[in-house]
Amino acid sequence: MDAAVQELVDSLPQGVVVTTPAALDKYRYDWTRDPRVGMPVAAVRAETAEQVQTTVRWAARHGVGVVPRGAGTSLSGGSMAVDGCVVLSLERMRAVEVDTTARVAVAEPGALNVEVKRAAGEHGLWYPPDPSSYEICSIGGNVATNAGGLCCVKYGVTTDYVLGMDVVLADGTLVTLGGPRIKDVAGLPLLKLFVGSEGTLGIVTRVVLRLLPEQQPRSTVVATFPTVAAAATAVVGLGRTVRASMVELMDNAAICIVEDHRPMGLDRGAGALLLVQTDAPGAAREDEPAAITAVCELAGATEVVATDDPDESEMLIEARRLFFTAAEARGSIMPEDVGVPVPLLPDLLAAIAAVAREHRVEIPVVAHAGDGNTHPIIVVDRSDPDSQARCALAFDAVMAAAISLGGTITGEHGVGRLKAAALPAQLGPDVMELTRRVKAALDPQGILNPGVIT
Amino acid sequence: MDAAVQELVDSLPQGVVVTTPAALDKYRYDWTRDPRVGMPVAAVRAETAEQVQTTVRWAARHGVGVVPRGAGTSLSGGSMAVDGCVVLSLERMRAVEVDTTARVAVAEPGALNVEVKRAAGEHGLWYPPDPSSYEICSIGGNVATNAGGLCCVKYGVTTDYVLGMDVVLADGTLVTLGGPRIKDVAGLPLLKLFVGSEGTLGIVTRVVLRLLPEQQPRSTVVATFPTVAAAATAVVGLGRTVRASMVELMDNAAICIVEDHRPMGLDRGAGALLLVQTDAPGAAREDEPAAITAVCELAGATEVVATDDPDESEMLIEARRLFFTAAEARGSIMPEDVGVPVPLLPDLLAAIAAVAREHRVEIPVVAHAGDGNTHPIIVVDRSDPDSQARCALAFDAVMAAAISLGGTITGEHGVGRLKAAALPAQLGPDVMELTRRVKAALDPQGILNPGVIT
Repeated sequence: MDAAVQELVDSLPQGVVVTTPAALDKYRYDWTRDPRVGMPVAAVRAETAEQVQTTVRWAARHGVGVVPRGAGTSLSGGSMAVDGCVVLSLERMRAVEVDTTARVAVAEPGALNVEVKRAAGEHGLWYPPDPSSYEICSIGGNVATNAGGLCCVKYGVTTDYVLGMDVVLADGTLVTLGGPRIKDVAGLPLLKLFVGSEGTLGIVTRVVLRLLPEQQPRSTVVATFPTVAAAATAVVGLGRTVRASMVELMDNAAICIVEDHRPMGLDRGAGALLLVQTDAPGAAREDEPAAITAVCELAGATEVVATDDPDESEMLIEARRLFFTAAEARGSIMPEDVGVPVPLLPDLLAAIAAVAREHRVEIPVVAHAGDGNTHPIIVVDRSDPDSQARCALAFDAVMAAAISLGGTITGEHGVGRLKAAALPAQLGPDVMELTRRVKAALDPQGILNPGVIT
Repeated sequence: MDAAVQELVDSLPQGVVVTTPAALDKYRYDWTRDPRVGMPVAAVRAETAEQVQTTVRWAARHGVGVVPRGAGTSLSGGSMAVDGCVVLSLERMRAVEVDTTARVAVAEPGALNVEVKRAAGEHGLWYPPDPSSYEICSIGGNVATNAGGLCCVKYGVTTDYVLGMDVVLADGTLVTLGGPRIKDVAGLPLLKLFVGSEGTLGIVTRVVLRLLPEQQPRSTVVATFPTVAAAATAVVGLGRTVRASMVELMDNAAICIVEDHRPMGLDRGAGALLLVQTDAPGAAREDEPAAITAVCELAGATEVVATDDPDESEMLIEARRLFFTAAEARGSIMPEDVGVPVPLLPDLLAAIAAVAREHRVEIPVVAHAGDGNTHPIIVVDRSDPDSQARCALAFDAVMAAAISLGGTITGEHGVGRLKAAALPAQLGPDVMELTRRVKAALDPQGILNPGVIT
């Protein structure tokens, strides 16, 4: 073993560091399963903030890259290993404590999103952000990517809930930013700078999260539209009239893929489905579904079904839940998460359909439509080099389409390594230069999550 | 006139720059009316982003400090002039445009908060952040301080509504960050770094603000408590059960000052008043006031009055509205905005009362109690040097009390120049060092709002 690696092993308790190829295999890949993944020299399974500091100090001394890793569910290559790096896994730092009077959860980064939700729920409280992967993704990863989800159309994204954090900087210093205070503007907003920085500026070892009272029961409305444009008109109308807690869209390709996978009577001729929920309290649960239905019908919905029964709600949104399983049944998937201003959703979906035709690939789309954030899912046959090549071109073309509509290459997954090459086209040279200046100020050696963002 | 100043005058259209002492007087002071204010060499009343760039480039060339100024309503000395600086007033950049389909307002920094609200309201939309000064403060200043207000207990603060901005950096480069996209995590969260940076990192020339559907009618509950501790217990209980849109507290000193100013039958023996509003939609307006009343009674309220009549609501919260006028009638006021975790409100208020006794000053307190953010108002007799000295000591002691309770020296006004000396005690040396590194990366010459924060 390399002398530097031996030094790392010796500086941490037994069992914290692994270095064998077999043991490292678990820490190399994230959910992109990207074949360009590198081979780390070690993986540290830190148990404390001090061990994170020890690891980062060692990395700084030896100029070794540090790839932080929560649950490894990144969809943008944010937690895949690079050659010669050390993977810093936070999987063992999983404590969650709830302070009911301050109404916060204090969580370690390896805790899963669902574990935070569950701990809050035990006290009648609620942690809203709900990425689709909430049962398997870590809260540290959520903070690193400023993760979104389905209810953020009403309740906001991760950054809106982060009140404080402990973060280990590139030289191993641990700083505490913010705390269990709901309002605090003392000093530069450094806390906000770390949320969504994808592990490139520091490694979060503890996070203080704002909680809300438990969510009220939800009512569900599902509307069928002849065209995506009609559905988008409804989305704009909804945004102006009600505060829906979920506004999801499935395009025709997504509907057909689900119906192929499990026939459930979806309309294969529909241009789009909208799945809308409201959690308005008390008797307003009767008013809002009516308002949602009216907006959808005005926009040209051909069929609208509404229910306030929880079981029936689940059935109605089953198609949306099944989508990823249905898509994966057709091949490997390359999920994107491009976004545009809400009114441009039809233009983006038309552009994506054109990309699919041009490159002869399947690209069904589901979208957090209320936020203008779409998930075009490129279905790739990994055993076919031609399919892979066409999908790679389509992946870039979808991002280019979003940028050309004044949109973003990533609404919630992060830039990671997979989208880093596309970032300058969105941000332009001046913002990239600003990005590099901030990165250099905080991580002059460039050891934190190298290759991500910049 | 100095040759450098002449160069500035010549580089901008006639009437944009003023340099005479009489003309500059208007641009020297902010609402702190601090006598330590400096004398600028010029004030630029920019009409366009290009003129802002010209001014900043000139300042960078000559190493002159730039003090940005919206409406000059800073309560922390954030927009008071320093000697030899140029004041960059944005008062002439006031355009507001509303895009109803993207549901955003695009505003120039000099537009008043109320003008943004009004423009949104004309389209049935709503810009929530509502600092008490919303009728006279600028949106640029709101962005610079990440301003809060009364409804942010439910609706969040300024940063939650800023989707995009144009900002002129310290070298005169104009960059565009974000845009009318609700979700966008592409790159470092630089947009968030500028919101609340108090003009020390760049000068905002255009901002894209998220709008919501119009607020629903509000119901109001006013509860009288024997002690501040009982009121704080109610605040904690409210936070766990309802999503109130306003949770304001007045302590005994504040109640008495209002009652002195205009007898309105307030209970001079009360420990605290809570003024709570809910804007739950539809029939829930009937459920929530009942829930709020129950929580207050459980916490020991001696009297609870509720109404859903808008006029009666206004009457009930009249005491809160009158407070600042009543306090100003007793002398000059030095408003603070210290905050603590919500459950520690009684401890903070007890500490403030002790400071008032020790330094023989009046310090009534009103608080955005739901956020743990208080406004202790130090009443000072500016004609009495002894009063001024005691008040200055009390001002620092109140901040020290907040810090010792794990709180913040500023919940919404910003650090400005008045609280800069107290900031290291809250943040500690490592966070101050991080602050300086970020500042140096973005403004190496230190020309932007010198003396603020760092």
